[in-house]
Amino acid sequence: MPATRNRLEAYPPNDMNPKKSELLVEEIEHIDIKQHNVVALVDAMSKMAFSARDLGRAAQIYDAMLRDDECAIILCLAGSLISAGLKQVVVDLVRNNMVDAIVSTGAIIVDQDFFEALGFKHYKGDVFMNDDVLRRLAIDRIYDTYIDEDQLRICDSTCGEIADSLEPRPHSSREFIREMGRYLSEHAKNRESVVLSAFDKNVPIFVPAFSDCSAGFGLIHHQYRNPNRHLSIDSAKDFLELTKIKIDSKQSGLVMIGGGVPKNFAQDTVVAGDYLGFDVGMHKYAVQITVADVRDGALSGSTLKEANSWGKVDLGAEQMVYAEATIALPLIGSYAYHKGNWKNRAARTYTKLLDDTVAMPVTNRQAEMATAAAASS
Amino acid sequence: MPATRNRLEAYPPNDMNPKKSELLVEEIEHIDIKQHNVVALVDAMSKMAFSARDLGRAAQIYDAMLRDDECAIILCLAGSLISAGLKQVVVDLVRNNMVDAIVSTGAIIVDQDFFEALGFKHYKGDVFMNDDVLRRLAIDRIYDTYIDEDQLRICDSTCGEIADSLEPRPHSSREFIREMGRYLSEHAKNRESVVLSAFDKNVPIFVPAFSDCSAGFGLIHHQYRNPNRHLSIDSAKDFLELTKIKIDSKQSGLVMIGGGVPKNFAQDTVVAGDYLGFDVGMHKYAVQITVADVRDGALSGSTLKEANSWGKVDLGAEQMVYAEATIALPLIGSYAYHKGNWKNRAARTYTKLLDDTVAMPVTNRQAEMATAAAASS
Amino acid sequence: MPATRNRLEAYPPNDMNPKKSELLVEEIEHIDIKQHNVVALVDAMSKMAFSARDLGRAAQIYDAMLRDDECAIILCLAGSLISAGLKQVVVDLVRNNMVDAIVSTGAIIVDQDFFEALGFKHYKGDVFMNDDVLRRLAIDRIYDTYIDEDQLRICDSTCGEIADSLEPRPHSSREFIREMGRYLSEHAKNRESVVLSAFDKNVPIFVPAFSDCSAGFGLIHHQYRNPNRHLSIDSAKDFLELTKIKIDSKQSGLVMIGGGVPKNFAQDTVVAGDYLGFDVGMHKYAVQITVADVRDGALSGSTLKEANSWGKVDLGAEQMVYAEATIALPLIGSYAYHKGNWKNRAARTYTKLLDDTVAMPVTNRQAEMATAAAASS
Amino acid sequence: MPATRNRLEAYPPNDMNPKKSELLVEEIEHIDIKQHNVVALVDAMSKMAFSARDLGRAAQIYDAMLRDDECAIILCLAGSLISAGLKQVVVDLVRNNMVDAIVSTGAIIVDQDFFEALGFKHYKGDVFMNDDVLRRLAIDRIYDTYIDEDQLRICDSTCGEIADSLEPRPHSSREFIREMGRYLSEHAKNRESVVLSAFDKNVPIFVPAFSDCSAGFGLIHHQYRNPNRHLSIDSAKDFLELTKIKIDSKQSGLVMIGGGVPKNFAQDTVVAGDYLGFDVGMHKYAVQITVADVRDGALSGSTLKEANSWGKVDLGAEQMVYAEATIALPLIGSYAYHKGNWKNRAARTYTKLLDDTVAMPVTNRQAEMATAAAASS
Repeated sequence: MPATRNRLEAYPPNDMNPKKSELLVEEIEHIDIKQHNVVALVDAMSKMAFSARDLGRAAQIYDAMLRDDECAIILCLAGSLISAGLKQVVVDLVRNNMVDAIVSTGAIIVDQDFFEALGFKHYKGDVFMNDDVLRRLAIDRIYDTYIDEDQLRICDSTCGEIADSLEPRPHSSREFIREMGRYLSEHAKNRESVVLSAFDKNVPIFVPAFSDCSAGFGLIHHQYRNPNRHLSIDSAKDFLELTKIKIDSKQSGLVMIGGGVPKNFAQDTVVAGDYLGFDVGMHKYAVQITVADVRDGALSGSTLKEANSWGKVDLGAEQMVYAEATIALPLIGSYAYHKGNWKNRAARTYTKLLDDTVAMPVTNRQAEMATAAAASS
Repeated sequence: MPATRNRLEAYPPNDMNPKKSELLVEEIEHIDIKQHNVVALVDAMSKMAFSARDLGRAAQIYDAMLRDDECAIILCLAGSLISAGLKQVVVDLVRNNMVDAIVSTGAIIVDQDFFEALGFKHYKGDVFMNDDVLRRLAIDRIYDTYIDEDQLRICDSTCGEIADSLEPRPHSSREFIREMGRYLSEHAKNRESVVLSAFDKNVPIFVPAFSDCSAGFGLIHHQYRNPNRHLSIDSAKDFLELTKIKIDSKQSGLVMIGGGVPKNFAQDTVVAGDYLGFDVGMHKYAVQITVADVRDGALSGSTLKEANSWGKVDLGAEQMVYAEATIALPLIGSYAYHKGNWKNRAARTYTKLLDDTVAMPVTNRQAEMATAAAASS
Repeated sequence: MPATRNRLEAYPPNDMNPKKSELLVEEIEHIDIKQHNVVALVDAMSKMAFSARDLGRAAQIYDAMLRDDECAIILCLAGSLISAGLKQVVVDLVRNNMVDAIVSTGAIIVDQDFFEALGFKHYKGDVFMNDDVLRRLAIDRIYDTYIDEDQLRICDSTCGEIADSLEPRPHSSREFIREMGRYLSEHAKNRESVVLSAFDKNVPIFVPAFSDCSAGFGLIHHQYRNPNRHLSIDSAKDFLELTKIKIDSKQSGLVMIGGGVPKNFAQDTVVAGDYLGFDVGMHKYAVQITVADVRDGALSGSTLKEANSWGKVDLGAEQMVYAEATIALPLIGSYAYHKGNWKNRAARTYTKLLDDTVAMPVTNRQAEMATAAAASS
Repeated sequence: MPATRNRLEAYPPNDMNPKKSELLVEEIEHIDIKQHNVVALVDAMSKMAFSARDLGRAAQIYDAMLRDDECAIILCLAGSLISAGLKQVVVDLVRNNMVDAIVSTGAIIVDQDFFEALGFKHYKGDVFMNDDVLRRLAIDRIYDTYIDEDQLRICDSTCGEIADSLEPRPHSSREFIREMGRYLSEHAKNRESVVLSAFDKNVPIFVPAFSDCSAGFGLIHHQYRNPNRHLSIDSAKDFLELTKIKIDSKQSGLVMIGGGVPKNFAQDTVVAGDYLGFDVGMHKYAVQITVADVRDGALSGSTLKEANSWGKVDLGAEQMVYAEATIALPLIGSYAYHKGNWKNRAARTYTKLLDDTVAMPVTNRQAEMATAAAASS
């Protein structure tokens, strides 16, 4: 029979006082794309219509990015992806050189990934559960998923401790998250972590709204207790660093799960590079998985063709997929993994580029480009 | 590289006068669930959160229906499913005793399935194509799919010819579609057809709004040319026939793709059976795939828990899946197929029940039930 | 303070056994567009962007229909509109010659409008209510609205009684609904009714899937009790009748609330007229209010530009509005009402045309057109 | 006739080379809630069902916030609201003490509001326009709205100039936006500006992802040209400042347009205050307008009941409204404005609180609370 028990069976009307331990029972398990070869399935989908075709085409475009030696790949993450069972997919993309930089919301990176690396879990929950009951039990709900609020507080304070240990100067979120990775390399209780594997592979992670998550609590605690001498999180530095990556790459591709700030932030690097005087091209490839509607005019659901009007995304190899990420990302990720074209791809180790560089231009390619741009203007 | 050419490449600004033959090029191909075993993938999805878990649970509930000897399975179809590449999935469900009756929109059964059985095709199209250009070329567009309007007219008139050949009395849509199946058994140019395989397997197909499709054109042509002596399509008879099936079954389950009339029509048989004096139970199992939003209050997106308040669907084994059908149905169908529990399932051949029966109650079970109901009232 | 009580206040955890009378308390009230002049507001919205502009433009297009002497207006209704408080809007459109024919789902016309005319009510409900509790109390839920199931059964049986009283031949749904109007003209307990006002104004109402509602229960009861001599509901006749209206009108416009069968059915009359040999034009005007997404390829959310590829809807005066009907229809209806252009508009009384006509062509215009069509072919 | 010309009329197939001046013609006009009294309309909507009732209740809850002397009101803005014609609504809320702090995306505040204050405009555009044509003309598209990219570059560089003029230390976005307001107080060409009116009224504006907008380009240009001595944008400081406001207020209410970072950021202040040791209560009131679906588990569409499980939002006076903002905000804003309860409300001038304060606790209330919290722990 189906795995999840029905609410009415589980919590009959006369049991309005469940214990916390009765609700935090079934752990969310992360899907492993390495175990499921869907290449033939997804290719078949690409010959259908509607979202199946779009999904098939998006998977093929991602594979084309992996086959293109010149293409740097930026993965954009929004929505509650890690808590929903997609952690292993992202870890595998990082470990297998299938992504060169990550732009994410804070919740994904801190509240969910770093949280699990500290040894904590997400649990299957009930979307119809009485939230007042949950609040009194200190259980936080994300749609159909439960989290132990007490454990989340430990995650908050660990971020605060890391902040206390760092130099009191402006850091990019990328620098701070790197220190979280360093912390995990010593203390992780669960090493299947995006933060840790990105640390190991020198894949930079950017969170443009870094205070807007569990880390934020740690950070304001740090600043509040150290009013005259504390670190700060410089979001402008984040943008400059990601722009450096765009400038350094000959071609670039975006793999976007959800919309929000990460989508816009990564797209904007084209304009930013241009604005700094470099002759950067549009993102050559772009795919996005989203259920956001296009008709409210907000960026999350805006088409990639619209992004072309802004000069951010090239036409020809862009594809929106109208699907919820927990279904679509395992299919697209598995397709790209089992096609195997990542095997010929070198790690770009952009963290090193960013750590070594103080000012731009620094690489030969950058110097060339800046010169060329100056000459033509 | 990705299969579908980009619009700008294909139809550059200076080519605003494409030929019809240039647009009707790539045929939609139907996905074959028999070729793709996703049992492990879908079981893994059931351990995640959000739509993946819902999809996994829905697939497991469908499998539970197939394992339940007492359960009759009604498949409800809405949306442009056949034109989108899902024909073979439905054909395989019919041929392998995985469904006992079908309730559908007319477009799916007539404009799309019967149409293809006549030898015609659906083609990959462009959602951004200029519709005025298409109209002048007599190409009809369904989102990203093209149809040759001239071929559709042949489909219309074939329905008219079938109408001309039948007895001038009220028919249920189910009876008429059976005659379409009989026509195909002789004349089909493509035998991979839902209408034809349902004819062969004695699986009844109901289209409660039967005039609202290609058949409607044939039917009004028939009535218009034969004002005093013509057949009619009796939608009440459809409802009575489907209710007979519900009465005859000990248990029932609904597999609903999209919402609309088919969803409501099939659910209502519980109330209808009760209204006629039979002690029928609620649908024991129910799954629905839909992207319709719940918040506009329309039936298409209404939850199956809401259907429980109406006494139509039992709680415990119901599941909504928020996903577009071209992605979700291949996964759910493939799961149920490769689990193999249909192998122990007998064909119910409800067409025979309906053809043989003039009035109710006729079966022993029906007589028993009517007696029991009378006794207890 | 806000009008609706909070669930937790109203039904504390220890009250899992509310009485029916405690839940059916606050009646849904129907909004009266005559009391709210929003002309300036909606004109201001038309100068903004996104849905406000679309809504403004749709209202202006509806007003243009009312100013066009040659234009017949067909109102298409889907979703739970009457139960949601939109009954008075539709009644006012009918009474003030702002609509010439209606195509609807059955639930709107029978379960909701006819139901209220019999003296019954809809009640404010709670979307988070336990549906199992409701079912045991015989309360049906439509999202946030409650209905007394016992009253609905009276509605069912009243339809059965009407069926028993009619001639045992095929009827269009339009003919049957006219008899429901006749019944109400004598027995209505609440005369603010779409069915009754349409009866009074000779505005035909079509329900292409007529068995799929409360009337269906009455109809199968009628057929089941009278196996050898009963009426039937001929959906082909419906389509032929609506096509006659399209043929008779010089121009036509569609005002569509929701999608589903009514949208398709009304659009198809263009093709149907053409198919019967009449030189009918496309619908010149078309507006649709819907929250259905376009990306699943289903008709409900398909754009009116897509309908142009089918030759059904002219470009130039079509507008989709992405909004839920309870918000959008009061604004659009009020705009058109207070612009006042309906005052110069004659009632078309299409019911008379349909009742008087047995075969086509009958009017001079029809004869002309048929001759012209024959000459040019 | 409808105001917006049809694309096919305006840009016939043979004109694929429009001039920029032909496309930037009709300016978006901002709706003025002061001109439209919808109190009776919205009260009537609150007696219906579905979204109309939700909208009515949300308007009533906002009015309840304005009547509650103890309640500080935080307005959260996401989506392209200012470009869509909602600027005047927000300006009027600020000027009339109807909002005490704003949390927003960067695009709204910088690319759209500050941009218009510099004298630039947004234009009606065509959602079906060829984006490649637009890109070549340097026209940016937001769904159905056009922007002159050249003017946007001036907006970018103006932000850079402001950055160059400020002290090279970490600033909160709130501090930087205050300087933008100061700049406008001297240089604004259009004084109907949210940034300017908030400057005048001492209403703080927070943009938690401040680099993710036009200002970001100016900021990285500033940092790139001044590698050793530049300002930075400290997002932790933003969070600390907004938390101070929450701590200072006895009660608080959220008015959220769209979701994204602003929604989460403002909700989190409850947890943040608690984390710093203050006994802050949940947000007592909360309304949100959104079209985001709840089923993908992302925060934007998550219910306010879910936020209760996190201890962020109280139950009893929270309401989601499923509607697009350009339709819903004019109705809700107009309702609250014309009810007039803001007339008794004092300006809270939180900017002064934040500018005067270096460390917490500073107010008597804060000192009391911190003492109480310490005593009880």
